[in-house]
Amino acid sequence: MNYSMIRFIIGKMLQIEGALMLLPALVSLIYREHSGGSFLIVAVLLSVVSLFMIRKPKDMVFYAKEGFVIVALAWIMWSVFGALPFVLSKSIPHFVDAFFETVSGFTTTGSTILTDIEALPKSVNFWRCLTHWVGGMGVLVFVMAVVPLSKKGSMFLMRAEVPGPTCDKLVPKTRSTAKILYSMYLALSGIEVLLLLAGGMDLYNALIHTFSTAGTGGFSSMNASIAAFDSAYIDGVITVFMLLFGINFNLYFFLLLKNVRVVWKNEELRTYLGVVAGAILLVTINIMHLYETPLKAFRYAAFQVTSIITTTGFVTANYELWPEFAKMILLLLMIIGACAGSTGGGMKVSRILILAKTISKEVRQILHPKSVNVVKLDGKRVSDESTHGVYVYVICYLVILAGSILLVTVDNFDFATNFTAVLTTMNNVGPGLAKVGPIENFSQFSYFSKIVLSIDMLVGRLEILPMLMLFAPQVWRKKF
Amino acid sequence: MNYSMIRFIIGKMLQIEGALMLLPALVSLIYREHSGGSFLIVAVLLSVVSLFMIRKPKDMVFYAKEGFVIVALAWIMWSVFGALPFVLSKSIPHFVDAFFETVSGFTTTGSTILTDIEALPKSVNFWRCLTHWVGGMGVLVFVMAVVPLSKKGSMFLMRAEVPGPTCDKLVPKTRSTAKILYSMYLALSGIEVLLLLAGGMDLYNALIHTFSTAGTGGFSSMNASIAAFDSAYIDGVITVFMLLFGINFNLYFFLLLKNVRVVWKNEELRTYLGVVAGAILLVTINIMHLYETPLKAFRYAAFQVTSIITTTGFVTANYELWPEFAKMILLLLMIIGACAGSTGGGMKVSRILILAKTISKEVRQILHPKSVNVVKLDGKRVSDESTHGVYVYVICYLVILAGSILLVTVDNFDFATNFTAVLTTMNNVGPGLAKVGPIENFSQFSYFSKIVLSIDMLVGRLEILPMLMLFAPQVWRKKF
Repeated sequence: MNYSMIRFIIGKMLQIEGALMLLPALVSLIYREHSGGSFLIVAVLLSVVSLFMIRKPKDMVFYAKEGFVIVALAWIMWSVFGALPFVLSKSIPHFVDAFFETVSGFTTTGSTILTDIEALPKSVNFWRCLTHWVGGMGVLVFVMAVVPLSKKGSMFLMRAEVPGPTCDKLVPKTRSTAKILYSMYLALSGIEVLLLLAGGMDLYNALIHTFSTAGTGGFSSMNASIAAFDSAYIDGVITVFMLLFGINFNLYFFLLLKNVRVVWKNEELRTYLGVVAGAILLVTINIMHLYETPLKAFRYAAFQVTSIITTTGFVTANYELWPEFAKMILLLLMIIGACAGSTGGGMKVSRILILAKTISKEVRQILHPKSVNVVKLDGKRVSDESTHGVYVYVICYLVILAGSILLVTVDNFDFATNFTAVLTTMNNVGPGLAKVGPIENFSQFSYFSKIVLSIDMLVGRLEILPMLMLFAPQVWRKKF
Repeated sequence: MNYSMIRFIIGKMLQIEGALMLLPALVSLIYREHSGGSFLIVAVLLSVVSLFMIRKPKDMVFYAKEGFVIVALAWIMWSVFGALPFVLSKSIPHFVDAFFETVSGFTTTGSTILTDIEALPKSVNFWRCLTHWVGGMGVLVFVMAVVPLSKKGSMFLMRAEVPGPTCDKLVPKTRSTAKILYSMYLALSGIEVLLLLAGGMDLYNALIHTFSTAGTGGFSSMNASIAAFDSAYIDGVITVFMLLFGINFNLYFFLLLKNVRVVWKNEELRTYLGVVAGAILLVTINIMHLYETPLKAFRYAAFQVTSIITTTGFVTANYELWPEFAKMILLLLMIIGACAGSTGGGMKVSRILILAKTISKEVRQILHPKSVNVVKLDGKRVSDESTHGVYVYVICYLVILAGSILLVTVDNFDFATNFTAVLTTMNNVGPGLAKVGPIENFSQFSYFSKIVLSIDMLVGRLEILPMLMLFAPQVWRKKF
């Protein structure tokens, strides 16, 4: 275990987090808010702490196990320090609440413990939504775009952090890949800001709602979420951009290279769009009787379906009042999630595709025991190792899901609340049903449950393995 | 596809079902009930229908695919004809209700659509509980004990019907295995009847409650289930026997051979007993404040934990009023289920064991990529094929679970009702939570949902594959 390398990278990361905090400090200057001071204090703290950590190690080489540990520790440390400004500015007085909110931000979950978001200082909410934007593409991918690392090492980091069953580099150098990813991310975000401004939103709201859309997070400046704007145009823009940020970013790179064929033939994209279209249709029909016109039903269905499958969690309609069928569709979309390599959470469409294809292969195998069947995705054979990885992922997912539900029962809420609270946090969605429904929040939970749910958000965002490694005693043995 | 062999075996099965119906007819004679006529009519109908089917085929050879189809069809046909006496005697006037009740009987689920069980004629309830007893050990295993079949063919039938990831024959001949299994089953049942009689139960109640315990079914003659007897002795006897019938029957055979070592070292048995002990402890502590003495809390906890993990579904306490933690423990036990090769349902302890061991293997593999790790159960290596089978089972299980919940939402009940109704039927348990809680029943569901839940019971009992085969179009192609 290369401990000095872990120290070095975490140090670099804390330095960068400190620099990021200058942005909300700037916002507080513009709006003449006192809370800016909290950001400056934490920024100074971070640069002092990191000074002790960024001494360059002699041995820069590290492997998969260090990669997992670095990723897990990095996310936890960012969340711990990212929570401090909330506490110092007294916006969220208790540290566990602030930690929950920050984890929810970085993991782009969007679940909140706040009961009155509109009371937050603008700079504090800017930081809250900025965590979505940075967390969406990955905090380590962000660091890699800025700090040079060894080729092999950065690949291990990327594999551990980027969601999905596989991870492809766009260009041979990982650092260039990270830079390209963030450039495209920045460009798409810029377009959304412009379109929201064109719809009459002010710059501040356009920025923070773009942060939330781009990271598929879900934090808003309004207690009623996007419903507060009550504008079909804004609903439409956000629906489209949620959908776009749920797509694998590699495909945008192929589009830039004018390789439309690859994008068009991409099975995950086709399935993703198919599922979205099907779900919108079913939900629209199911909720039609609740709205004046079918068009209005379509508008709310399209927004909510996209918001949930991309795991954003924005709300324009209180779907808690919809029929059980529509609610169940939304629960299933939570689990499916967005595409691999996007900013969205959930199981990822490609994992679902691999599972579906494996099952159909197994049935064929039983019917024709002597035939040779392989699972293919985009014309390429899916290795047994990959399918195996998906199986293990699903099993671990279920065990952690069940265990977490059992733990949060200590608060003695009803089954729907416990089940969907864990489901929505593990899939980084945001809202659930019942007491954690679209117009509710997570403030009622005990601190114990809030810590459990925070860990679930991290487990979901990092796709289990890095967090699992952190708890494996073997990892921490000296001789290892 | 050997169609004539399918016809032949199904014919034999119907003949035997007709013969079984003479038992409730006899009961109606003893109690001078009119309902006996219904059983005689259906018995005659069955023997006429089977006459056209039992012409011996020229080609007696068949393979795994026929095995699956025969098992699936056999269970459906037995349920269809088994439901007729309920309809004819007007005890359950609508066929779908009667079908649900019969499927619930044969699959040893124990969910009921009846609102007043005590109003049933004794002969009708005798038949209802007898289906538990026959279904518990397997309707085809029952037939095999009586009808001679080719060695290879009967192995395919047994593999398709006996629950669990693997299936061992006790002796080289499958027919002898079936006979041994039923003899041990009969012996254990006999002891339970005697012990219940000793506790002051009348013969009729001792018989039908033994049928239910032995099959891990859950039907009773009382609206309040076992709580109606309010006897610590009877609770105790039934708790112990539920536990015994949840153990792999092969282990009793080893006990008969005085091979105590094999039984003692059996990992599935140890895990099963460990889980039961742990769950009883946790639930007892969690519900202690609700009862006058800790001993009373222990009595109800022990009964309910055993009843749920063995998927029997008897009730002595309305656990719907227990804290959410205890309820969640019971839900998890529903999923775990009893041991493979027992009469219990659920995922089976051995599957959970294989999954847990595989996950721990995978983590080791990531930490030490060059090491060679194998999964072992009872000292023997678990083949990749077996682990693969468990994975596929889990995935199919989840897909069917999610799909079924979506379908039953048409009745617009709450989430806890929909979720636990599907969970309890798929795992062949009986009661769930909320509207299908321990003192509720399934009568509120629409006929559509009742059919969905009936299919779920069959899917659960036959462990997915046979039912899945029935819906695969390739199976029915002539050229196949």
